[in-house]
Amino acid sequence: MISEESELSIRPAQARDFAGIWPIFRAVVAAGDAYAYAPETSMAEARRLWMEPPAVPFVAVQDGRIVGTYALRPNQPGLGDHVGNCGYMTHPDARGRGVGGAMCAHSLVAARERGYTALQFNFVVASNETAVRLWQRHGFAVVGRVPGAFRHRLLGPIDVLIMHRAL
Amino acid sequence: MISEESELSIRPAQARDFAGIWPIFRAVVAAGDAYAYAPETSMAEARRLWMEPPAVPFVAVQDGRIVGTYALRPNQPGLGDHVGNCGYMTHPDARGRGVGGAMCAHSLVAARERGYTALQFNFVVASNETAVRLWQRHGFAVVGRVPGAFRHRLLGPIDVLIMHRAL
Repeated sequence: MISEESELSIRPAQARDFAGIWPIFRAVVAAGDAYAYAPETSMAEARRLWMEPPAVPFVAVQDGRIVGTYALRPNQPGLGDHVGNCGYMTHPDARGRGVGGAMCAHSLVAARERGYTALQFNFVVASNETAVRLWQRHGFAVVGRVPGAFRHRLLGPIDVLIMHRAL
Repeated sequence: MISEESELSIRPAQARDFAGIWPIFRAVVAAGDAYAYAPETSMAEARRLWMEPPAVPFVAVQDGRIVGTYALRPNQPGLGDHVGNCGYMTHPDARGRGVGGAMCAHSLVAARERGYTALQFNFVVASNETAVRLWQRHGFAVVGRVPGAFRHRLLGPIDVLIMHRAL
């Protein structure tokens, strides 16, 4: 977990932060083991997905370097827009240091501040057990399981979990 | 159910069909009981959602009149795009005549033809029991339930079901 001396700070992302977000997005998506985004997603498309409304992007900064990022958005339009959705990405070099957990905790507060009454993850790859356990520790429950909905680069078709927590 | 003499035909929609689709979209969405789309969704936005890629729209035509419409699209990008998603809308005046069931059956074939290996519905409002039973009759199973994810115009917060079937 992040301790105070690790100097991890999480804040809303500015347009210029995309320079630090893009390498993370590219590496995470290229791995083909956690996100549906096509491994070859272009920089322009990544910017649109992560930085443009309705997405609200955040960055986790440590020692002046962006080590993680998350984007918060309504999970549905209109009559479903009280439920938020988040995607989190940690730089491959910064894994195992609690960055994901710190971003998740931050996102719960950020979502509440923006009026969301729940968060829903639509696409938690079941083989990504570290993530599943992390979200569970942060109060998320598995509310659905879709068989074979993800084509994992190494493992082939993998179930996808839907996770949810009230805020 | 649709019988042969009812002359219901289902075909890909052309741009000009939007004139017949829009009144259906508007009526269904304004009811606020089945779709997340904001009840006040504009015509331009409806056109974008229903008619533009990646959505592939279809219409159900009876006696020369568009009585129903559905849109087929990938449920996720990239590594999740083998699972399709459909939204179906029947004109309020044409309910109870099997139009929804006929569109569902048609969409299973259309999805298979386009290479999808499954269909997933992300947002089946649990109070919409007619729809839930209809999808179940067409082979869909409930694979998830999200508490209170829909603000029903009359009933307030209602659970949302995720339904799925392999193709």
